[in-house]
Amino acid sequence: MGRDKTRIVAIGGVAAGPKAAARARRCNPQADITLIEQGEYLSYSGCGTPFYVGGMVKDYKELMTTPVGVVRDANFFKNVKDIKIISRTKAEHIDRDKKEITLRDLDEDKEYTLPYDKLVVATGSSAFKPGIRGMELPGVFVLKSLDDALAIRAWLDQGAKKVVIIGGGLVGLELAENFIGSDSGLEVMVIEIKDHVLPGVLDREMALLVEKRLKAKGVRLVTGEKVTEVKGEAAVQSVAAENGEFPADMVIAATGFKPNVELAARAGLEVGPTGALKVNDFMQTNDPDIYAGGDCVESTCLVTGGPTYAPMGSVANRHGRAIGSNICGGEERVPPLPGTVILKVFDFNVGKTGLTERQAAANGYEYETFISAGPDRAHFYPGNNPVIIKLIAEKGSRRVLGAQMVGPGQIDRRLDVIAAALSMDCSVDQVANFDLAYAPPFSTAIDPLINAANGLRNKLDGMAKSVGPAAVLEKLERCEDFVLLDVRSPGEYSEVRIPCANSVLIPLGKLRERAGELPRDKEIVAFCKVSLRGYEAQILLEDLGFENVKFFEGGVAAWPAELEFGPQD
Amino acid sequence: MGRDKTRIVAIGGVAAGPKAAARARRCNPQADITLIEQGEYLSYSGCGTPFYVGGMVKDYKELMTTPVGVVRDANFFKNVKDIKIISRTKAEHIDRDKKEITLRDLDEDKEYTLPYDKLVVATGSSAFKPGIRGMELPGVFVLKSLDDALAIRAWLDQGAKKVVIIGGGLVGLELAENFIGSDSGLEVMVIEIKDHVLPGVLDREMALLVEKRLKAKGVRLVTGEKVTEVKGEAAVQSVAAENGEFPADMVIAATGFKPNVELAARAGLEVGPTGALKVNDFMQTNDPDIYAGGDCVESTCLVTGGPTYAPMGSVANRHGRAIGSNICGGEERVPPLPGTVILKVFDFNVGKTGLTERQAAANGYEYETFISAGPDRAHFYPGNNPVIIKLIAEKGSRRVLGAQMVGPGQIDRRLDVIAAALSMDCSVDQVANFDLAYAPPFSTAIDPLINAANGLRNKLDGMAKSVGPAAVLEKLERCEDFVLLDVRSPGEYSEVRIPCANSVLIPLGKLRERAGELPRDKEIVAFCKVSLRGYEAQILLEDLGFENVKFFEGGVAAWPAELEFGPQD
Repeated sequence: MGRDKTRIVAIGGVAAGPKAAARARRCNPQADITLIEQGEYLSYSGCGTPFYVGGMVKDYKELMTTPVGVVRDANFFKNVKDIKIISRTKAEHIDRDKKEITLRDLDEDKEYTLPYDKLVVATGSSAFKPGIRGMELPGVFVLKSLDDALAIRAWLDQGAKKVVIIGGGLVGLELAENFIGSDSGLEVMVIEIKDHVLPGVLDREMALLVEKRLKAKGVRLVTGEKVTEVKGEAAVQSVAAENGEFPADMVIAATGFKPNVELAARAGLEVGPTGALKVNDFMQTNDPDIYAGGDCVESTCLVTGGPTYAPMGSVANRHGRAIGSNICGGEERVPPLPGTVILKVFDFNVGKTGLTERQAAANGYEYETFISAGPDRAHFYPGNNPVIIKLIAEKGSRRVLGAQMVGPGQIDRRLDVIAAALSMDCSVDQVANFDLAYAPPFSTAIDPLINAANGLRNKLDGMAKSVGPAAVLEKLERCEDFVLLDVRSPGEYSEVRIPCANSVLIPLGKLRERAGELPRDKEIVAFCKVSLRGYEAQILLEDLGFENVKFFEGGVAAWPAELEFGPQD
Repeated sequence: MGRDKTRIVAIGGVAAGPKAAARARRCNPQADITLIEQGEYLSYSGCGTPFYVGGMVKDYKELMTTPVGVVRDANFFKNVKDIKIISRTKAEHIDRDKKEITLRDLDEDKEYTLPYDKLVVATGSSAFKPGIRGMELPGVFVLKSLDDALAIRAWLDQGAKKVVIIGGGLVGLELAENFIGSDSGLEVMVIEIKDHVLPGVLDREMALLVEKRLKAKGVRLVTGEKVTEVKGEAAVQSVAAENGEFPADMVIAATGFKPNVELAARAGLEVGPTGALKVNDFMQTNDPDIYAGGDCVESTCLVTGGPTYAPMGSVANRHGRAIGSNICGGEERVPPLPGTVILKVFDFNVGKTGLTERQAAANGYEYETFISAGPDRAHFYPGNNPVIIKLIAEKGSRRVLGAQMVGPGQIDRRLDVIAAALSMDCSVDQVANFDLAYAPPFSTAIDPLINAANGLRNKLDGMAKSVGPAAVLEKLERCEDFVLLDVRSPGEYSEVRIPCANSVLIPLGKLRERAGELPRDKEIVAFCKVSLRGYEAQILLEDLGFENVKFFEGGVAAWPAELEFGPQD
């Protein structure tokens, strides 16, 4: 687009910075482009660090290569992209009037200035450190940078065996998986302050499914527990919490990230309500010659229209491309985003896009939710696995607000469809009619996502009278008097069942003739393996005049609490 | 919705019929619902038959069960859904005035009539049989119904060894894979009349990638060849074509499907230009009391707005749900569809949604295409695999028109995103900003689909001057005088390269200093492994004043012709 000697300086060499610089080079082959990085390493996959600390990725250089194996170092940027790299150098000050930045060479401890025509602030984020005693002890880490990852690996090599991870969020759980999966025989404990893991990603009943899996894989999990201190002398020895003290020879605080905005804020660039830099759709700050992107800026949530913070590598790359175009005269907008998250937790895939139910409620939406469970490909095709989907839509408009997905089955494609649907303001009816790719090795004739959408449509239409498993769990916890009607076959029942004193087994095929056995004055909650038969039971009983009947969504497959296995005594 | 004794009769018991009946039952618990099926088997997965004939699915009953293993037979429909099944019975005549159908019991050869209030025509499709001699010989089959599949298995059990499949479309290739993968030591040959396999799914350069894979897996493939006769005496012995004769002890004609419309057409129901029944958005025929769905109806293509024929199980289920709702008073519309197709061909995944380039051209669109290649997840994450994506968008509006995807990597999620995008009339710019699910086990920070979209944007913007591999292949075939500039490293070159006398190797990092070695009066076509460096080479050479320079998309990874491996002599 351009073709002049514009001086472009980007501060931050991990994701948005290098991407902006590379894109600017393509847009303006004559520009004078400089990339400043405080650390030693450039353009690496921050999201890859959990896989390096656990040993799945053997060499940290793999995190810094292009897909064809070329290491992205200063030579690469110089020779291939004609971008000048200044590393081990900290940007100390932005002088917006003079249009120059003050840099400090960290090795030689010298300050100097660098002029710019267009400045890109891509200063990223830092790991949030809990404000408790003992965080400075040897053996206590955070995980954000490649340097952090190298330090964790070095400590592990010295023989750490008992790891306590503070925080059951995305990074905490990725770390738990990678530590358990490493060859080091580590004991792994996760302490989460909220009442369930992944509080920003999942609602409670979905998170409980992940917790079951974590425990089954040997992770010791404590939720609703606040860490108060890290204890030790020469090195960490334990983690003290409000309700206990847990031995540890290594501690990792995985308690979130905070945007690095100090440099920009000092220069008068506007900070938004999330604490990250405020930019317009073109990724421009309140100074038209200064752009910002990546983990240091806030995004707009496309569902609520409000500010949100999405420190993701994928987002940073989109920012970088737009910035690179726009500083060369382009007009590329970065639209609001749904905030898609995905992670692998052992053999479980876990993700969300858009709002969780908690977020929908907090934002004042009138919404309906539906949970469905089913195989991710044809049940007769080898290797099919269940996925559990929670879909949320606004009442009235029927617009999709968000989705959560959990299970050993393939969730990424279903999440992506909802992410796209959210971008287009789709209704659940539109989603239900998407022409998704079907053949037995890939899906079921009615894709699990379509099933979930149809279930939610039935509920919005008043046909399906259902509640989520969380509501049933609460009924059981409150010892309510109701009938939990299992409409599966006796064979299924003898394999696995929900332990409950109020439980009655009447297979769906016998329900019409045996309905007389059911009380007419009590609430009846039907279910089956995935609650398709549960739904039919509701309709059948209503037809027979039962007035207080519903089914619970997801059935045994999505039951978040303990199950009872094997023939009953 | 309703609650009355409406008499609902559905003709056809495989997909749309049973789905319509089951949905109607949920919408109207009092309705009198009857399902007529000509054959013996109900509600089975027609798409699963190729996996049964090859032995991957051991028992054909698996194709007829619900995901929880319940066989969908007449008892199941009666007891669980209160739907009356009349099987082994052919619908002979529809009397629209009297609102009754004439049925013939095939076992007792008796005719009788059945009244209806609402009729559902779900008569499906039949395999198209080529009009050549010898199709009636023992050992010659089509594959459409479960009966066909059982007959093929029985013939295989008698020792057939040389299978010739007529037709390299979806079913033909699924069969080829399943036969090669079976334990029977079969020799498998596929004869396709068009100049490449999957002509309705892929453009030529994408299909050639599939053909390479088929051949590598031991399938003998002949394209551009017309079969003229099947020869044999007591049973099939060979297949004669225009340019040769091929021995065979089994032949399967996989030459497409045709809608079964005779019954409906005789009753005056309208047939559309595709030869399938014409219905409105509510799946209603020109008789408001008669609905039709599944393989016997035509669909509307959402890209062109014209009629199209999409005989898919997933489509039939959507039809069935809408019909079930609408005959009970609902108003559920089935929107136009992009025509999504996916199949597995050995370890390759293959699919398309929307228009192919050939279809876009035939429909008079002004379009641009882009092919990109890259890993389906982080290159440092074990098990990543390449995907090759061809994306097509309209010039001017930049609206996405279609996508094709091929490769061992995961394509289904990327196809689904484009299927959703097509439904929402998205531009390629919108697709490039979708917030797709990213973590290293699932994707790359810039998803392959986003890469493809950005490549196409660059081309539409006039920044990327590129051609597809097909154009380069044609240049080579025509022995044009141009420079094929390989900008990979010498290490990559010695592993694999495109055999070409005009080829020059200058790694991208040396290109600025060594550009003088290149002629300024010849066309230069740069490439690398996936042509990201090829793109940079184009920009760099343009900056140095080269006027006739481009790159070719997809690079070595998407090269559709032969490659040369190992160090050069």
